Amino acid sequence: MLSNEQHQKCLEECLACMEACNTCFDACLNEEDVNMMAACIRLDRECSDICALAARAIQSNSPFMEQICSLCAEICEACAEECRKHTHDHCQKCAEACRRCAAACREMISH
Amino acid sequence: MLSNEQHQKCLEECLACMEACNTCFDACLNEEDVNMMAACIRLDRECSDICALAARAIQSNSPFMEQICSLCAEICEACAEECRKHTHDHCQKCAEACRRCAAACREMISH
Amino acid sequence: MLSNEQHQKCLEECLACMEACNTCFDACLNEEDVNMMAACIRLDRECSDICALAARAIQSNSPFMEQICSLCAEICEACAEECRKHTHDHCQKCAEACRRCAAACREMISH
Amino acid sequence: MLSNEQHQKCLEECLACMEACNTCFDACLNEEDVNMMAACIRLDRECSDICALAARAIQSNSPFMEQICSLCAEICEACAEECRKHTHDHCQKCAEACRRCAAACREMISH
Repeated sequence: MLSNEQHQKCLEECLACMEACNTCFDACLNEEDVNMMAACIRLDRECSDICALAARAIQSNSPFMEQICSLCAEICEACAEECRKHTHDHCQKCAEACRRCAAACREMISH
Repeated sequence: MLSNEQHQKCLEECLACMEACNTCFDACLNEEDVNMMAACIRLDRECSDICALAARAIQSNSPFMEQICSLCAEICEACAEECRKHTHDHCQKCAEACRRCAAACREMISH
Repeated sequence: MLSNEQHQKCLEECLACMEACNTCFDACLNEEDVNMMAACIRLDRECSDICALAARAIQSNSPFMEQICSLCAEICEACAEECRKHTHDHCQKCAEACRRCAAACREMISH
Repeated sequence: MLSNEQHQKCLEECLACMEACNTCFDACLNEEDVNMMAACIRLDRECSDICALAARAIQSNSPFMEQICSLCAEICEACAEECRKHTHDHCQKCAEACRRCAAACREMISH
């Protein structure tokens, strides 16, 4: 059974990642070279959506919490991989938030 | 590679299932004995949310379309199993929509 | 009181608009000149999200159906105005879907 | 123009309200007398959805941030009014989170 601490840690990382992705989405659309950011924009939206769903699942004690967080980890890892390539501050921050969220999701599931 | 027909079929079933789940959610909350419908209400919301995400993924050509539809199939099956137990017309219709959506998701993924 | 026909018409336009916006979002990110599409990409996401919420509200008989559809109309109109400027087929289709959805939302609310 | 502090305050209250609503939704479905909680369950879902959309709007600098937060305030007030009637701890906490979120939304819009 999951401890409250593990739920809480995972929830916090999901919310931080959702924020980093939404901030990065907005900032990418305002960059001078939007062409270079297309993959990032797409993944930011994907990742924000699944983080929001994962947060809802944890908060409402969903019977599918683990499956949703497992998919969240996978999407976070893809978003981190893309954001890591770009030197913009918002991309680097987003990559780190995605990496942490993926780790917290995998840690929660493994217990 | 997925054909347009398979995408289209899966999308239609996701949208039909989302509608059946939302209709069932509303109707369950108006039943005389809401206590009996608690599991159904919970699963209707879960299932509506994942169907909406799956529809969005198909429509926007998400790189995670298959993973999202795989999770959608799993949640649809759980919702179908619960709704099937109740004789209300809205539950029987929802169970059938969930069963069809799960099948369409699994069919799309297998190709 | 709203007739079933007005609900149904508005719901259909919300779902058609969500699809057009998600298709346009994906296609804009694949255009050669993504810079030119930045405002369109942003509005496609906004409009898809509010159309999804409006569809959910109609399907689940939300007490806030009219307020949500009123906001949906406003966002659809902004998205139509932006999409209309671009000659891409996906933008023209999206502008038309947005225009129809805004009209259906306003028609439903006025009754 | 909105200051960063006002954005931040409103965002925090939206996220706190989303959590309180999702917790209350889950807890209401586990109460002995679910019939009494039907309106609360419905409003918890509505309010969680609009708070999630408002948080996304603030984080991504949406051109419709104010309109979304205005609707959020209205739905929060309705949810607070319903939750306030119930003595359960989760309902009282939810009523207070909704009240605070509505106030923060209205404060942000007025500036």
